Amino acid sequence: MRVRNKPWAKDKLNQYSQYVISEPEKHKGNWSELFGNDNPIHIEVGTGKGKFVTEMAKANPEINYIGIELFESVLVTALDLILEDERPNVKLLNVNAKDLTDYFAEGDVDRVYLNFSDPWPKTRHAKRRLTYKTFLNLYEKILVKGGEIHFKTDNQGLFEYSLKSFSEYGLLLTFISLDLHKSDFEGNIMTEYEEKFSSKGQRIYRCEVKYQNEK
Amino acid sequence: MRVRNKPWAKDKLNQYSQYVISEPEKHKGNWSELFGNDNPIHIEVGTGKGKFVTEMAKANPEINYIGIELFESVLVTALDLILEDERPNVKLLNVNAKDLTDYFAEGDVDRVYLNFSDPWPKTRHAKRRLTYKTFLNLYEKILVKGGEIHFKTDNQGLFEYSLKSFSEYGLLLTFISLDLHKSDFEGNIMTEYEEKFSSKGQRIYRCEVKYQNEK
Repeated sequence: MRVRNKPWAKDKLNQYSQYVISEPEKHKGNWSELFGNDNPIHIEVGTGKGKFVTEMAKANPEINYIGIELFESVLVTALDLILEDERPNVKLLNVNAKDLTDYFAEGDVDRVYLNFSDPWPKTRHAKRRLTYKTFLNLYEKILVKGGEIHFKTDNQGLFEYSLKSFSEYGLLLTFISLDLHKSDFEGNIMTEYEEKFSSKGQRIYRCEVKYQNEK
Repeated sequence: MRVRNKPWAKDKLNQYSQYVISEPEKHKGNWSELFGNDNPIHIEVGTGKGKFVTEMAKANPEINYIGIELFESVLVTALDLILEDERPNVKLLNVNAKDLTDYFAEGDVDRVYLNFSDPWPKTRHAKRRLTYKTFLNLYEKILVKGGEIHFKTDNQGLFEYSLKSFSEYGLLLTFISLDLHKSDFEGNIMTEYEEKFSSKGQRIYRCEVKYQNEK
C-alpha cells in the first residue's frame, strides 16, 4: 500500500487509547478483561483503513475484533471509522505482525483474518508474505487449538503461493472460492481494496484453513 | 463427455492387442515386462481421445504411458492416434477406474494424470469424481511411495472441490496454477478438451499433489 505520511497520526492514535491499545503487551493472556467479556477474539493482520474490521464488529457483536496495522497514517483512518459509532467490540493495535507473540499468548485468538496482504511478488521477499511459514508458526502460537485463518486476495500469485505454503505447513483447507463475488458465499464484507478491484472485474480469491493441532 | 455409440469399436480394440491390453490383470505387478524396460509408468485415468497420452509418449520416450478409458467408442480414437506412429511406450486399457487395483499392484505406477475429468457437479454424485477420497485411496494403493497426481481442469467447481479433497486426504500441494495458459509453465500438452475451452478464453486450472507416505 502506498502510505502518505501524516505526522499528526501518532498523536491522534495516542489520544484514543480506549480504541488504539497503547501497551498491548500488558494484555497478553488477558484480553477478555479488556473487552469485559469472554467472547471469541478475531484479529485482522494488516487491517489497513479498517473497513473490514469495523463492519465485522457491527455485524457480529458477539465477537471481539482486533485490527493490527503497522502504518500509523493508515490506522488513523481505521480509527475514524471506529469513532463513527464507537462499538465496544473492536480495538486497534499499531504494531508489527512479526511481534504478535509479544502481545498474545497461546489461545488468546480464535481466528486470524488476512485480507489483501502485500503480495511481495519477488521471490527474495517471500519471507515477508503474511502466509510465509514463519508467520503461520506465529499465528499457531497465539491461536486456540484448531484455530483458523481466513484469507482473501485479488493477487493470483500470492494466492497460489499461499495455498502451497498452507499445505506444506499441514493446514487443512476447509473452504475455497476461486471467484468469491460470483459464488454463493454469504456475509462477505468487502475491504476498501476489494471494492476497488472487484469493480474492475478482477477475481477475488478466498480460502479458510485450519490448524490440525487439536489434542 | 457425450459418447457416440460405435458398435464396431470393441472389435477394433481387440484387433490391436499390442496397444489395447486385453487381460490387464495378468500384468499386475509386472508391467515392466510388458514394456520391456524398467522405465517409470505414468497412467492417465480417463484418457478420452488420447491426445495427451500419445503426445506425452512422443515427448518423453523414457516414460511408459498407460491411458485408461471406460468408453470403447472414445478409446478407439486414442488407438487411431497411437497407430499413426506406433510408439512402444504407450498402451491403453479399456477398464473402469474403480477397478484399478485389479490391474496394478502397489508401486506399479509412478504418477497419475487426471485431465478434465467429469465434474459430476451435483453433490449427490460427489463420490463419482475422480478426486473423491475413495479414488485417492485407490491411486495410493497402486503408486510408488511419494507418488504424485497431476490434475488439470477448466471446471472451477471441480478444482475447488479437489483442492479440499486433496488437503483432507493429507496430500501435499507442490504446484498450482490458477491460469495455466497465462503462466510460465513449460511443456504443457493440451488435451482435445483443453484446446477447445482455452480457445474460448476459459481459464485452465492445474495442480500437482504428492502422497506423504515415504517411509
